[in-house]
Amino acid sequence: MNNLLAFEARKLIRDGKWQGPTCGMTLGFVQANLVILPKKYAYDFLLFSFRNPKPCPLLDVLDAGNPVPKIAKDGDIRTDIPKYRIYKNGTLFDEVTDIKEIWQDDFVSFLLGCSFTFEKALLENGIPVRHIEENKNVPMYITNIDTVPAGVFSGKMVVSMRPIPEKLVIRAVQVTSRFPAVHGAPVHIGDPVKIGIKNIEKPDFGDPVEIKENEVPVFWACGVTPQSVALSSKPDIMITHSPGHMFITDLKDEELAVL
Amino acid sequence: MNNLLAFEARKLIRDGKWQGPTCGMTLGFVQANLVILPKKYAYDFLLFSFRNPKPCPLLDVLDAGNPVPKIAKDGDIRTDIPKYRIYKNGTLFDEVTDIKEIWQDDFVSFLLGCSFTFEKALLENGIPVRHIEENKNVPMYITNIDTVPAGVFSGKMVVSMRPIPEKLVIRAVQVTSRFPAVHGAPVHIGDPVKIGIKNIEKPDFGDPVEIKENEVPVFWACGVTPQSVALSSKPDIMITHSPGHMFITDLKDEELAVL
Repeated sequence: MNNLLAFEARKLIRDGKWQGPTCGMTLGFVQANLVILPKKYAYDFLLFSFRNPKPCPLLDVLDAGNPVPKIAKDGDIRTDIPKYRIYKNGTLFDEVTDIKEIWQDDFVSFLLGCSFTFEKALLENGIPVRHIEENKNVPMYITNIDTVPAGVFSGKMVVSMRPIPEKLVIRAVQVTSRFPAVHGAPVHIGDPVKIGIKNIEKPDFGDPVEIKENEVPVFWACGVTPQSVALSSKPDIMITHSPGHMFITDLKDEELAVL
Repeated sequence: MNNLLAFEARKLIRDGKWQGPTCGMTLGFVQANLVILPKKYAYDFLLFSFRNPKPCPLLDVLDAGNPVPKIAKDGDIRTDIPKYRIYKNGTLFDEVTDIKEIWQDDFVSFLLGCSFTFEKALLENGIPVRHIEENKNVPMYITNIDTVPAGVFSGKMVVSMRPIPEKLVIRAVQVTSRFPAVHGAPVHIGDPVKIGIKNIEKPDFGDPVEIKENEVPVFWACGVTPQSVALSSKPDIMITHSPGHMFITDLKDEELAVL
């Protein structure tokens, strides 16, 4: 179940033949986070994303009611994700494999870059990615870093953490700086307390991972930020992918590199 | 009248002591294009800018009614530009030095990157900029390149042209690629006909410049694009800076470099 082309993976998912996580399904193709909001929230969310490009790197914004992304021409945002979460008034309401029946003409879909792309780049540069080695979810933490508010949306930034060997930290900054569309350079290197993380062994989301001797915790802005910020404003309806169950685009990872 | 700090230049302009072009007033500070539209057009314009980052590189989007940019903390968008143009229903209505009296609570201000920043980088890399040498306005052309439409906004891309010595073309691509927030890498190198420009000696805006032997015309997306696209949709009111009379921000040119 890997080395599929993007359109093959989307079809498999659309036909109900794959309902698991998408990690590793399509090597080299960009996978994306999904946030769907009614049009009345779309301006504030678009502005929030512009003002917070590191946690909210937009890849595509679909016109209201349109389920076909520009970055996945044969795709359908309503069927091509293995698992969706439906939130009502800020609370998880249901988890489904298809949102065709609840689709509304005023739904605006936002696709946001996810860290899979830059993790591949780290690995290709010989930089270890601990949670992949340990077969866990990446540890994520709510920080004391304020996002820049926009309309109804505001809140603290969520970050993901990867322990990096001291002598590879500079290379890790360089490698991820090339990919601003998938969170880009780290937001913090070193002491977790400086960004309001009290216990590195107790992530707010995901799993704890080992930090070895001579390794430094390095923190990147995380795509959970826009979801948590949007939910805290309690929109009457909001739909996202389920964690790890991403939308697979036609973009190749290297196409997102700035240089 | 150069080497001023950004806030000094803004005060000079605000006090009515400078009404000319801002080029060269504040070396090293980013200057910006201004587009003001009523809130009802703001979502479409923000989406258009996201979908067309090369011609419309957003630096700041102000909340409706707020005249103080984040990137110029003591600044005031209503007074700190030497000359404004007011358009009504898509037609130039007036040119003024202050818009305090016509300011509306629903005005959303967009600041967009301008080419001054990347021209400075070209010069510092020993790459000549012809229209500066000839003391002219940069030549600009309407191309056959479609922008990606968003809501009421759509139209062709406007480009600026700089003749570059053949052996410096690659360096020019590298240098400007570092600055995606001010149009970034070129959109076309060489034959003007390929992008719908019939007569390179007759620009649609600005002045013609000499193309010497062994020089190649290189084309960059131009900030005139969002203005021309917005005007063609005939908003009941729209305010911009007058050409060359820019808003001076607190950002330093190098802060916009991606690497």
